[in-house]
Amino acid sequence: MAKKVLKFGGTSVGTIDRILHVAQIIKREFDADHQIIAIVSAMSGETDSLLKKSKSISNNFNPRELDVLLTSGEQVTSALLAGALIEIGVKSKSWQNWQIPILTEGENSNARIINMNVSKIEKYLSEKGVAIIPGFQGISKNGDITTIGRGGSDATAVAVAKIFDAETCEIYTDVDGVYSSDPNKIPVAKKIEKISYDEMLELSSLGAKVMQSSAVQTAMMYNIPLEVKSTFTNRKGTKIFDQQNIDYTKSVTGVAYSKDDAKITLVGVQDKPGVAASIFEPLSKKQINVDMVIQNISSDHKTTDITFTIKRNDLLKTLQTIKENKDIHYNNLSHDEKVSKISIVGAGMVSTPGVTFKMFKSLARENINILAISTSEIKISVIISENDTLKAVKKLHNAFDLD
Amino acid sequence: MAKKVLKFGGTSVGTIDRILHVAQIIKREFDADHQIIAIVSAMSGETDSLLKKSKSISNNFNPRELDVLLTSGEQVTSALLAGALIEIGVKSKSWQNWQIPILTEGENSNARIINMNVSKIEKYLSEKGVAIIPGFQGISKNGDITTIGRGGSDATAVAVAKIFDAETCEIYTDVDGVYSSDPNKIPVAKKIEKISYDEMLELSSLGAKVMQSSAVQTAMMYNIPLEVKSTFTNRKGTKIFDQQNIDYTKSVTGVAYSKDDAKITLVGVQDKPGVAASIFEPLSKKQINVDMVIQNISSDHKTTDITFTIKRNDLLKTLQTIKENKDIHYNNLSHDEKVSKISIVGAGMVSTPGVTFKMFKSLARENINILAISTSEIKISVIISENDTLKAVKKLHNAFDLD
Repeated sequence: MAKKVLKFGGTSVGTIDRILHVAQIIKREFDADHQIIAIVSAMSGETDSLLKKSKSISNNFNPRELDVLLTSGEQVTSALLAGALIEIGVKSKSWQNWQIPILTEGENSNARIINMNVSKIEKYLSEKGVAIIPGFQGISKNGDITTIGRGGSDATAVAVAKIFDAETCEIYTDVDGVYSSDPNKIPVAKKIEKISYDEMLELSSLGAKVMQSSAVQTAMMYNIPLEVKSTFTNRKGTKIFDQQNIDYTKSVTGVAYSKDDAKITLVGVQDKPGVAASIFEPLSKKQINVDMVIQNISSDHKTTDITFTIKRNDLLKTLQTIKENKDIHYNNLSHDEKVSKISIVGAGMVSTPGVTFKMFKSLARENINILAISTSEIKISVIISENDTLKAVKKLHNAFDLD
Repeated sequence: MAKKVLKFGGTSVGTIDRILHVAQIIKREFDADHQIIAIVSAMSGETDSLLKKSKSISNNFNPRELDVLLTSGEQVTSALLAGALIEIGVKSKSWQNWQIPILTEGENSNARIINMNVSKIEKYLSEKGVAIIPGFQGISKNGDITTIGRGGSDATAVAVAKIFDAETCEIYTDVDGVYSSDPNKIPVAKKIEKISYDEMLELSSLGAKVMQSSAVQTAMMYNIPLEVKSTFTNRKGTKIFDQQNIDYTKSVTGVAYSKDDAKITLVGVQDKPGVAASIFEPLSKKQINVDMVIQNISSDHKTTDITFTIKRNDLLKTLQTIKENKDIHYNNLSHDEKVSKISIVGAGMVSTPGVTFKMFKSLARENINILAISTSEIKISVIISENDTLKAVKKLHNAFDLD
């Protein structure tokens, strides 16, 4: 009998009606002769409401107690869903993480799942019970309640799928899959039927917030097949596999963009070892997340220019950090806060020559100026003026036959 | 160093501001060199809101999952209060019942605390930590979450006080003590400084809903001194002791009443063994709670009359049950749904002759007709017409020098 892990996010269990609907989805899968473990998030809005309570006590609320507070949200959903299943005749039980237990290590609010005991739940599944496990939480070695970061229910689902050796892990959410671009802005964007873990990672780090990236990474590491699908329609979702299992007919799978970036350029930086570190170490200490970094080969072998991008709301902090740090030497510091990053992503581009050229030519034809370029094996990103964002995405979506 | 158990009810922790205020109360007691264990209820309204969620799934929501659901309320309060204490510089930790653990037996929703492990919390107290324990909950032997009935936080507080051998158990609530009568209706009612467990039990079963009765019983059994006091004022509360420690200057401590009663009389019931049982067994099976029962000595040794009172909203169900039951024989069935029960309560009445006579005479002077009488060692209750309720209470309050 195939074992399935089904994960339901906050909007999927956001009201009692939706919980009743989720119970029907589970019943359907259970009746199709699967063993089911369901992972649930807190009802949408709950975690924020609990966070708000903690913030009105302290902006620096004790992390151990914050985890005790927040995990109550998933506990509520797990009990309601188990109760709803029992009501429609499906044997079911909620399993709080300490009852299993799911062991974590690392600090509160940011723990990692390291192990879980399978015996009680395996026994329960074999007795034809549906196990409901609250996501996002765990237990530390000394018996404290921990959480594994916002969006952590995806990580719980993948870890459970791995440790219980599930056939598949289905992520039910409020979108019906991964699209070739943002369907709200690019009406011709299409749902992707199959995608590799790498591509999914590149797309989700670019704002396609369908799944938590670290959960995709874990699934990739252990080769756990994922499927992202909608709780609210019966349509097929997007399957996420190992690259080898995908037959690429197109060089590019999707076009993604992020609009809240800013670009900083240091002109006339000394061209010697350790210079880049001297710039980025103080930024990292200030929790500033640097995204793209471009450094050209020095033409005079003495100085070079370094360009990098950051989130726009980190701009002031970044400029201040650079100016105040006496170890960073440069001739000129410039910035542009009205830029966006456009990326084409596709595992197929490895075997297709001319993708880079085609991208640049398409943008040139629209008279869009490229401010910086960065490439990886399955992604090409360019920084352009923010005003050109949608024009560029539409053009590339069409140029790579995604419409 | 004296150990104190402080219990804070739902209204005492009903908002973030109130939780911050409760943290200050605890800090004051902690700074006065006490070891503190605080027991907390769910924020007021929370339990009802969770119950409502379960009811919109099923009127017969699975009891195990209901307990998982409801205990999230106290978990939230415990985390917020521990966080609030840490914020004002008091070392504190929330302890969920499974972390202690507090063991219960009996069915879900209605379990009883049978034991708890003291080692971890004793160690924590000796390290100058304030332990916050969610009330109302426990763990069954097989590791399920249980609850011990509505109002169960009082029971948790008394059990913790007993097992940790606390010097006192203080019940912080939204009233500042136990009154000689309902202060909202009888403005001359006074706060009682000291009261015995028995008197407290009689008064609280009569609607003075200051504390859960079974918690008072437990405190009485183990002779744990209680104090009921207000979270919102600094005034002294009402101390609840063993009778021996109270010096009675008055025969009557308080006058209580309940207005939602109904009276039923069966005329011409056979006067032979087993008749009363044949009436009350079917009522008990229908979950109808019978309060006063009066049966007079039979004058003709053949038939007698039985009068009893029930809650008014059980009236129709009760009449129906009696009429439908073929084993109950009687000549006539009458009922009166506009009655109320007036009780005078006082451990001092045992040693004061004439209390009963004084009560009846006072009522007679006001032209109030007594429909039924029932007495115990420390209580005399009469059933009268509902319209006379306040007049009777005021008269008795004055007659027994309570104004």
